[in-house]
This record gives sequence, structure tokens and C-alpha cells, in this order.
Amino acid sequence: MIIVLKADVEADSPEVQRLIQTAESYPDVHTQLHRIQGATRSVTEVYLLGSTGVIPTEPFQEFACVERVVRVTEKYRSIGRHSGGLDAVGFEYNGVHVSQDSFHPFPGLCAVDRRENVEEMFRALHERGLKTSRAGAYKPRTSPYDFQGHGAACLPYVFELAGKYDIRIIAMEVTHESHLEEIQKALAESGQATGVMLQIGTRNAQNFELLKAVGQQTELPVLFKRGMGITLEESLNACEYVASGGNRRIVFCLRGMKTNLGDPHRNFVDFGHVPVVKRLTRLPVCIDPSHSVGRRSMAPDGLLDVFHVTAQGVIAGANLVLVDFHPHPEEALCDGPQALLMEELAPFLEDLSIAREAYEQRLRRVAVPPAES
Amino acid sequence: MIIVLKADVEADSPEVQRLIQTAESYPDVHTQLHRIQGATRSVTEVYLLGSTGVIPTEPFQEFACVERVVRVTEKYRSIGRHSGGLDAVGFEYNGVHVSQDSFHPFPGLCAVDRRENVEEMFRALHERGLKTSRAGAYKPRTSPYDFQGHGAACLPYVFELAGKYDIRIIAMEVTHESHLEEIQKALAESGQATGVMLQIGTRNAQNFELLKAVGQQTELPVLFKRGMGITLEESLNACEYVASGGNRRIVFCLRGMKTNLGDPHRNFVDFGHVPVVKRLTRLPVCIDPSHSVGRRSMAPDGLLDVFHVTAQGVIAGANLVLVDFHPHPEEALCDGPQALLMEELAPFLEDLSIAREAYEQRLRRVAVPPAES
Amino acid sequence: MIIVLKADVEADSPEVQRLIQTAESYPDVHTQLHRIQGATRSVTEVYLLGSTGVIPTEPFQEFACVERVVRVTEKYRSIGRHSGGLDAVGFEYNGVHVSQDSFHPFPGLCAVDRRENVEEMFRALHERGLKTSRAGAYKPRTSPYDFQGHGAACLPYVFELAGKYDIRIIAMEVTHESHLEEIQKALAESGQATGVMLQIGTRNAQNFELLKAVGQQTELPVLFKRGMGITLEESLNACEYVASGGNRRIVFCLRGMKTNLGDPHRNFVDFGHVPVVKRLTRLPVCIDPSHSVGRRSMAPDGLLDVFHVTAQGVIAGANLVLVDFHPHPEEALCDGPQALLMEELAPFLEDLSIAREAYEQRLRRVAVPPAES
Amino acid sequence: MIIVLKADVEADSPEVQRLIQTAESYPDVHTQLHRIQGATRSVTEVYLLGSTGVIPTEPFQEFACVERVVRVTEKYRSIGRHSGGLDAVGFEYNGVHVSQDSFHPFPGLCAVDRRENVEEMFRALHERGLKTSRAGAYKPRTSPYDFQGHGAACLPYVFELAGKYDIRIIAMEVTHESHLEEIQKALAESGQATGVMLQIGTRNAQNFELLKAVGQQTELPVLFKRGMGITLEESLNACEYVASGGNRRIVFCLRGMKTNLGDPHRNFVDFGHVPVVKRLTRLPVCIDPSHSVGRRSMAPDGLLDVFHVTAQGVIAGANLVLVDFHPHPEEALCDGPQALLMEELAPFLEDLSIAREAYEQRLRRVAVPPAES
Repeated sequence: MIIVLKADVEADSPEVQRLIQTAESYPDVHTQLHRIQGATRSVTEVYLLGSTGVIPTEPFQEFACVERVVRVTEKYRSIGRHSGGLDAVGFEYNGVHVSQDSFHPFPGLCAVDRRENVEEMFRALHERGLKTSRAGAYKPRTSPYDFQGHGAACLPYVFELAGKYDIRIIAMEVTHESHLEEIQKALAESGQATGVMLQIGTRNAQNFELLKAVGQQTELPVLFKRGMGITLEESLNACEYVASGGNRRIVFCLRGMKTNLGDPHRNFVDFGHVPVVKRLTRLPVCIDPSHSVGRRSMAPDGLLDVFHVTAQGVIAGANLVLVDFHPHPEEALCDGPQALLMEELAPFLEDLSIAREAYEQRLRRVAVPPAES
Repeated sequence: MIIVLKADVEADSPEVQRLIQTAESYPDVHTQLHRIQGATRSVTEVYLLGSTGVIPTEPFQEFACVERVVRVTEKYRSIGRHSGGLDAVGFEYNGVHVSQDSFHPFPGLCAVDRRENVEEMFRALHERGLKTSRAGAYKPRTSPYDFQGHGAACLPYVFELAGKYDIRIIAMEVTHESHLEEIQKALAESGQATGVMLQIGTRNAQNFELLKAVGQQTELPVLFKRGMGITLEESLNACEYVASGGNRRIVFCLRGMKTNLGDPHRNFVDFGHVPVVKRLTRLPVCIDPSHSVGRRSMAPDGLLDVFHVTAQGVIAGANLVLVDFHPHPEEALCDGPQALLMEELAPFLEDLSIAREAYEQRLRRVAVPPAES
Repeated sequence: MIIVLKADVEADSPEVQRLIQTAESYPDVHTQLHRIQGATRSVTEVYLLGSTGVIPTEPFQEFACVERVVRVTEKYRSIGRHSGGLDAVGFEYNGVHVSQDSFHPFPGLCAVDRRENVEEMFRALHERGLKTSRAGAYKPRTSPYDFQGHGAACLPYVFELAGKYDIRIIAMEVTHESHLEEIQKALAESGQATGVMLQIGTRNAQNFELLKAVGQQTELPVLFKRGMGITLEESLNACEYVASGGNRRIVFCLRGMKTNLGDPHRNFVDFGHVPVVKRLTRLPVCIDPSHSVGRRSMAPDGLLDVFHVTAQGVIAGANLVLVDFHPHPEEALCDGPQALLMEELAPFLEDLSIAREAYEQRLRRVAVPPAES
Repeated sequence: MIIVLKADVEADSPEVQRLIQTAESYPDVHTQLHRIQGATRSVTEVYLLGSTGVIPTEPFQEFACVERVVRVTEKYRSIGRHSGGLDAVGFEYNGVHVSQDSFHPFPGLCAVDRRENVEEMFRALHERGLKTSRAGAYKPRTSPYDFQGHGAACLPYVFELAGKYDIRIIAMEVTHESHLEEIQKALAESGQATGVMLQIGTRNAQNFELLKAVGQQTELPVLFKRGMGITLEESLNACEYVASGGNRRIVFCLRGMKTNLGDPHRNFVDFGHVPVVKRLTRLPVCIDPSHSVGRRSMAPDGLLDVFHVTAQGVIAGANLVLVDFHPHPEEALCDGPQALLMEELAPFLEDLSIAREAYEQRLRRVAVPPAES
């Protein structure tokens, strides 16, 4: 059961204390307090855990500080919307607000190779006013004989350069809990020059031990990539492993599904699930057009498939866009063929704007007149 | 081998006759003449069939009437782009131009049930200035014990009402060659009150005998729905059965793929393939959001999933949108739960416009400056 | 509702007439009489059709001629087991008994090419005492430009040779209702020299019009191949189209499913479904190892994959085995690479015997002592 | 490049030393020596690693101690057969020989719940002369709120009981590298009362860090379960992560693939891949019928589907059978519904014997007369 408190209520007020005492007076019930800081407002929620099945909701609804009492279902207990009972407030990290309403592109290097390329990338983003990027240090590769990423060795210069060009969040994949420590250490040594969003790759979508590890720290947010051969429900259940550890700053990322029905794309583009994830969960939704399409094919209308599927995700409300760029794709140590070129950055961002503006226009149409909604 | 003639060349001019004689002078080679009537221009093509592998292209390129000579590959011989060698001219039918550049929504009844519902549907379209719709008379159902459609019995009033409300094309599924004759007879009896685009359903995507039947007549265009468990390549090969019969007025329709990876949608939305089909073939591309999504779920932003995936198809350049509406879904004899309501027609068309306008805006950006393209 | 009559009851006996009158006295109910001729016994069933939901079963159970009254569920109304309520009696055709207990290999040519090859094939089968084979005259091919089979032209010599070598049943694919007529005409002209089991290919698994056509004649049995991208439930529903037309002599064939999860086999071998189809339906089950595996790879133990998967189907109780052989695979006009060679016929049949004997041994173990079962 | 030495050659003989010196005289080449102990013979192999592409094979073939020189392909470098160039020797562990020729059932508890159930299980196996079993201590569950296994706490009594009943190998899943240490510690504390084969579950099939961890120790063998939504090739590549670490004692396990095309089975039974894995790799092949089928459905012939698919795997040459039993399925904390009952142990083993005997009979037929093969 989740008790959503009213906006102006202090968590340590006497009334909230009484509410908590009331809740804990039931046998085998304990509580957790969650404060979620969004951009325009913050929400405080009291979680009742344990044998809550028999607890009535009425006694709590009568507290003046309570906005709503939501009985949560088994499914997606922490990340779920519970049939619309809970709002998607999102989170704030390193000055960037991420929610089901926000919009941030994350262009960057799939894998860090050379310092020069990282700098060229970040500089270009900075020139366009972007503060979010991606950069891979730990690369899980299908074959053990392929390049596995520079690992911790590249973190100092990646973070230093991010700081130099005012990049606030870097999405970075981790494949082992030790990577968290390495990243946190390197961030500290850089004087917190930037922020990192820990990315869980599709191959680790059901690596529950890793999910627990990133869920049990609350410093860094998590970008969870959908598992490639499992249903959406199974991926959302796996994502619960992160949330159940205590970390609620989670982004859910669509990246295409593995089935030859999606050929000639590398994966079957699944961005039709953008509205579905927003309905089922409170999580902001990211799309990864590069790994979905996996190639640089162009439609006869002069637009690359990567542009097209990105526009598709965005016009349906995607909140983040993880996209591979590379100043010199021929130097890329992995996934070079799918990377966009630096001269495509401006056109890509313009194309994004058109699609995002179209989404907002669609929203405005639904929202009028607001009185009826 | 395909010889594309210049725009102003008459097919019966002496030079074209000489060209044909030259072509047929090679052993085991015969020719076919195709005239494709687009909206802004028409194209005449001479097909060289038979043992064309050894024929040189040079002798033909020297004819003054020839614009281009394209050696076609085995793949998608008739419908293919042949690596961009051929343009997608589209076709004109009953006053409506359909091509990879045009845009037409086809809202309508999945299955005709009562005359009143057909009339209500067509009247609403007429009020909005639409001239294209869908209406199912022959319904292939998963179980033999389900409603199978009214068949030929409903055609007279469907065509009469279409004429009354100035509907120029009705997309209508056929599952047997006899349906073609029934439709042509009923159209004739209605005084050609409207036009029919013959729809091949996903279950018949590899019913080659039916494909040959609709391909061997050239009166009515064909809307081919992608097969649900086969690759895109296999569907395009099947589509060749229509084209190889002689009928080039074909639309390719994406309608979602059958795999539980797309749950909770009824089918896995495959509109990421819109640019792919336009690149591989000369065919206009249709999307069917109703059968892809299969339900009336709404995202927290207030837009139905059906609206979202439609916008996704359109912003990537879809040319037709087949969508289920019903004045009284509770009366619908099939697929009622996925139908949009009449009061949703205006919002749907507005939403469409936003997405189409965004697509055109994206195109304009690519096209400027045209000098470089 | 299905009323199973006792073994020795005559369908035209006064008691059965009274039973039928009783049934038809209910409003909107009519009856059908089915006599199923098995090898060891025959069964007569009275089908109650129409509004049978409200009819009680007791009045019928009291008739002395009645063995059992089974209320059928919606699912698989005609072909279903109805939770074990109905037995799988099988059928007799041209002297061959086919049921869930019988076992018959159908080795033969995937596609008829030359008379000599047909003769060589049939002669080899005859020498081994086999009376069942396959021979394709109508071939549905993925591309319209591939060889489509010799069609009606080859039927006279195929049937003549079958008669000469005492082949009693040839499994032969049909893709259009006109093929039925051609086959029946050619059979008549051959003096019924052999019998034909009409094969519905996987691409036509949901071509409901064709299914109705083969279902509405009762002369020739039908071998229904599972649809390649649909669930087992959907294939069984499609199979109902045959049965609901009146033809109950149906064999269900597993032939592998289309998904790259089955690579490097051409299709994902699905013979784990042999016991499932036997449980859900009354139909004998066929396996097609050639199209499942699609290549001549050999395991390090010296046995071809085709041998291995065949043994897998048979040890789990498969009743028919459709398998491609060719005297000269290099001459084969389709699927040559997967065909077994004539010198492999004897080893194949021996391998089959080992697997079948193992199945029967497994059965004997379960069946002893019968008192406890 | 792999140099296979003759059977009686000592690895430290002067000739082998000279061979190694020769190999390492090429620039950027180093060597590794592998001694594989099979049941009937042992094999010593010298691996040449590094820039071996330009090294000729002739100089090595001339050494008297050399049996064969195999140039390995990129694919499956360590586990591969390299087109039959390498034999599958298998391995010996705790007195049990495991290879592509051996056969061992591993019946046991999917998850350890109570000491009494473990004891009942092991005692029953002991009474039947079995020395191999399964027992799950660490359970990765789809939802974080499900029972996750007793972990290290149950190891002492599991190993003690295994010792008491002479169980030589327990297959036990690990989901984190710390579990290795826990298991090794508990084994040591039990006085090496038994042996453990580390099982990598399907969800961790591409958890490369875990694969490296189990690959870098060589004490305990590894049972690798195929990934559920990836191709066989991708699973084999993942398996290379284990082998490339140095541990060659690997078993590859088929456990069904996740796709609704396999319904009503829990997973699509993939035992048609038994001969494929044996051809592509040197690994012994295990089947897991319990997780494939996932239910206790019975065919009309009186045999459970689990029995049927087991027989299918075994008649095609499977080497291990991992199968869930439980003395009291209603007490099972996970996967109870698919477990076989203790009274089914004897019938199951008899059924296994029939299938294994059929496989061996098939082999004998191929092998005779050896002169011709």
C-alpha cells in the first residue's frame, strides 16, 4: 500500500509521525518514506510493506496530510502505475530533470576509443547546448575475442572532458558491480566533474545480481535496457529488482527486439511500446535508434532509417534518445557502421525538434479544454 | 531489363517500335509495355523478358527516346527499386492518386454489419472531405464458427452508399477469386458508383493462387497485407506474384507481426519498416494501426495507443492509413474492441495532420538546398 | 454435443431414430450422423448442432444404444478430444489404416520432375514393401519466377506408376480447389490406380477457402501442415475449417516453425508437439523431417540430422513420416539439397524401425499391468 | 592453431619442448599446453595463440610426436570442432566421465527447500545406483519478491547428504561469482564429500563477467544453459567466454526457447539441436526436459510430455538429462507443477533406458561394417 502525501506536507511533521505509527501498529507491517524530487513539484510517499493485504485504506484517507491511498498490485510493485493510481514524478540528477514529460537527447560514442574522439564529441554537443551524452567504457561483446572497452583506464579523461564541456550526465554501461565502484571513485577524483547514469545492457537485463547492485546504491540513476528475447512484462519485472533495492531513479530503454521478423534492421524496432511503458510504469522512457536499426540505410526521401525511427519514438512521447555518433566511424572499435557522423549532428537535432514539437502539439490538442480532463 | 522512356514519348511512335524490334531480335526475348499514370507525370517502361542476361545495355541507351536502362536483379523483379534505378511513380485510380508521396487515410468499418452503420460511416467521412474508406464484406476468421461476413449480399448497398457520399475507393478484403467477380459485377450494377481496392489479408499473404488471380486483372488495384510470421523479404516475394501477373497498382500494407514480444499489443507494431519498404520497392506504403494495436488502451498523456502508432507510421512517410471505426462498436461483429468511435474521427484526423505536417517539414529540411541533392 | 453410440448399434435402428427425434425436438437443434471406420472397430456418433447449450445430457445417457454423451467445448469442436471425452478412431483409406496408433512412412519426391525418377522411387518403395509415398505436382514457391511444378500434366503417369508398384496413398499438395478436380479426374482415368491424400501446405494453413474446399469433399483424406508463424492453437482452429465441412479424415503434420531461433536448421523442429496434438485432437500426427531440417548435415556419430529428428518424432509416437528422397538430387527442381539418396532408403527405414520399436516398448511398459491404469 | 600430440607423448619430452620453441620463434606467438583426460584415453594439445595466421602448418606436422595440426577458425575457437578437425574428448570429474559418448541422468530438486526432501531425493537416487543429481541453492527468479533460494545456508547439509548417499556430482546454479567461493568453501568443509558442476542459467547466458569467473577457475566443471532469446550461434559464442578463461570442462545444455510458437509447452523444445551442438562443438550435450515442457500434461498413450521429450533428446544422443523431481511438489518453493514424483523415478529411468538403448542400437547400425564408412 502506498500513501501519497499532499504537496506541502513535511515528512517529519507530527501528523505524518502519527500516520506512520498507525501503519506500524498493524502486525508484520513496516514503513518506508520516499521523497521524489521532480522539476515543478516534489512528492512524498509512505510505503507500507509486509502483510498489508488486510489493512483497510479508510483510516489513512482520513488524515488531513494524505492526498491518496493506493493499494498496489503484485505486478511492478515499485515501478508500476497501479492502474493510474500513482503519478510519474521523475527525478532530478546533477541539474537535469528526467521524467515522463522531459526530453533529452543523449548523442555520443558507443565505445570510448581515443581521448581526441571523446573531446571532439563533447565539444560538438557543447556547441549545440547539449548537456547529456553517452560514452561506453565497459563493452560486453558477443565474442570474448572482440574489443571489450578501455574500462576504468579511460574514466579520468572522459570525466575531465565532460566537465570541461559542461556535460551533466553520461550514460555508461556497467557489466559488473566493481564498475560502480570504479566509476564512483573516478567521479570523486574528477571532483564530480559530471554525472553518470549507469546503463544495464540488454544482455544483463536478467542478471539479477547486477540489478540488485545498482539498485542498492542511490547516488547514480540507472538506465535499464529491455531484454532482447523476453516479453515486456519480464523486462519490467527485472526492472523491479533495481527499484526494490531502493533506487527509484530509473529510466526504461527500448532498443529493439531480437527476431528475424525485423530484418533488414538489426533488431525489430519496438518504439510502439513507448506509450505502453508510460502507462504501465512511472519510468521515463528512452529509445535507442542506433542499436535498433544497426545500419546507415537511407530511405528514398533522403532521410536515414535512424532518423525515421527516432522521429517515431519521439512523436509518441519518448523522453530520452540514446544515439551513436562518431567523429571517425572507421576508427570505431565497435558498432562503427551504425554511427552517425558529426556533420549529421545538426540535422539530427533539427529532425528531433520537429518530431518533439509535433508531439507537444498533439498533447496540446488533447489537453484543451483542460476543465474536462 | 527495364527501359524507361522519356516523359513525352508516345508508346506507338516509330522510334519505340524500332526499339522493341531491336529487343525482340535477341533470341528468347520478348517485351511488355507498361504505362504508369502518376499525378504529376506518367512513365512508360519497356520490359525485356526472357534470356536478357546476355543482352548489352548500350544499344538501347543510344535511342533518343530512352531515359534510362536498368538491369533488374532477381529480387523483387517487378516491384523492386533495383538499388534506386527505378522511380516510384505510383498510380491513379478513380480520381485518386496513390504513390510514395501521396497521403490518404482509409477510416471505415472492419466488417459491414448493418446498412445504417455503413451510411453513418460514409456520411461522416464525406462531411470531413474524405474520399477513401474501408469496408469488409468477406471476413476470414480464425475459427469456422465465427461470423464470416455478409459477402456479396451487402455489396449493392455498400457501393450505392459509397456513391451517395462520394467515396472513391473502398479497401475490401477478398479471400477467393470468385469475390473479384462478385465485386466487379456489383460495381457494374451500381454504375461504377465507387472504386474498390482489393485487399489481400495477412493469412493469404502466401496464397499464391489468389495473388495470381488479383494480379491477372488490371481493373482494380491491390492492397497487399504483409504475412504475419514470415520475413519482410518473403512478403515482398509474395507480392511479386501480384505484379508478375501484370497488375502494377499495388499498395504494401504493414499491420504488425505475430510474436509475443509485442505484447500487450495484439501484434508487434512494425512501422519502423515504412522507410524500408519505400527503399526496397516502388510501392506506396499503408499502415494498419488498428490490427497492430488491437485494443483501446490510452497512454497517460491522454492519447490512445492507436493514435500514437499511427503518428509513428505517418511521421516516417506512410502513404495510406487503414483504420477501424465503428458508430456502435458494441454491434460490431468482429474486432469491435479495437474500433475508434465516431466522435474520435475529428481528433484522429487532426492528429494525423500534425504527424503528416511534421513529415513534410522533415522532408523540406532535407531538400534544402535542392541544388546539392 | 456428441453422442457416441455403442459398438454394435445400427445407425438405422428404431432406437437411434428415437434418439434423433428426441434431439431434434429441442428448438433450433439439428443432428448429423458420423460413422468412423477404424481398423479394429468402427464408431457411430450423433452430432447435435445449433443451440445445444441448454440441452441436458441425462435423457440421452438413458438410451440403451448410447455409450457416452460428450458436451463439446468451443475449441476444436470437430477435431478436439474434449478433455479425453472422445477417442481417436482414425480412418481407413484405400486399404490403409491411419490413426493415432498406426505407423506409416511416406518417402517420396518433393516435386515430380521426370517419369524415370518417379518410377525409380516407387519401385524402390515397392521392393521394401511400402505402400505410401509423397509426390508433388503443384508446388507453391516463394518466388513467382521459380519452378511451380508440372501440375495436372504429370498426374497420369504418376498414378499409373503408383498402380504398377502398388502404392496405395500418395500425399500430394494442392494449392487451389481446381487441383482437387484435376486429381479426381486423373484418378478416375487411371482406374483408381492409387489413392491421394490432399496436402495443405504451411503457406495455405489459413487459406480458409481452400480448407473449406478440401473439407467439403469426403472422398480424399487431407494432410494439414501446420502454419509456420502462427501458434498451435491457431493451426488447430484452421484445421477445424476442414472438419467443419464434413471431412473428418484429417492428418495433422508438424513441419518445423519459422524463427531464427532454430538455426542452423531451416525451421525450428517442433516434434515435441507430437504428444500435444494427440492429446488435444483426434487426429493422427505426421512429421516432416526434411522441411524441418532442410539440409544434409551429419552429426559426429555418423547419423544425418534428418535421421535424428525423425527418430525423435517417432519415439514420441508420430504416425506418419513425410520424407524427401530423390534418385538424383542434382536433377531435383526444388529442395534437392535436403533430399535423402536412394541408397539411404534402407538405412532410413531401419533407423525408423528402431525408433518405432522403442516407442512401442515404452507403451508396453506403461500398459502393464493394465489392471492399475 | 592447435597441435594435437600423439597419445603416448609426454608433455615434458624434449621433442615437445623443441616444438614449443619452434612455435614461439614466430613473432607475437605464444603457446599453451592442454591435457584433456578422457575415460579411455587422454589427449595433449598445444595451442598457438597470437599472430598465427601466417604460420605454416608443415613444420609442425613433421614432428614425430604430432598427430595432427588444426588451423582453427574464428568461430568457437576453444569449444569448436573446427570442421571435424578436433575430437570431443570430454572430461573426468570426481570419478564420473562426461563426454559426447557418455550418458548420465541428473534427477533432483530444482530448489532446495528442506533437508528432509534433499535426503529423500538422494536416498532414492542411491537406491537406483545413480551418482549424479541436481540441487538449487541460488535461484534467480523473474520477480524480486519471489523465493530466491536458501543460498549458502543449505550447502553444508546438501553436501553432507550427497556424501552420505554417494552422489558424485551435483549440478547447482550460480548467479554471482561469490557463490563459487561459497561453494568451494562448503565443499572443503564437507571434506569434499561430493562434487559440484556450476550451472549458468539461461538468464545469465550473456552475463560475460560471470562466465569469465567460472571460466577462470578449473576446479569445478560448468554446465552452460543456452540463452532463451538468442540464436544458437550467440549462445555458443557466450560459452567461449568460459573456455577462453581456461576451463574446458563445459557441458552445453538445451532447455527450450522462449517463443509462443512452442505453446502450450512453457518453452519451445529445442532438442533437435542435440546433433547440431555435437557437430559444432566438442562439448557434451545436456537436455532439460522439465523447464522445456513446464507442466505435467500426459499424452493419450499414458506417457507424460516430459517423458516424451526426454526420450526425444536421448534417442538423438543427449549425454546428460537434468530433470526436476520432488518428494512433495506441493511443498516446492519453485517450479513445483513441473516436477516428477518419487514414484515416477523408476518408470522415468526405465523409459530413459529404452531411449538410450535405441540410440546405441542406431549407432551400431551405422558403425557396421566399419570398413565401408
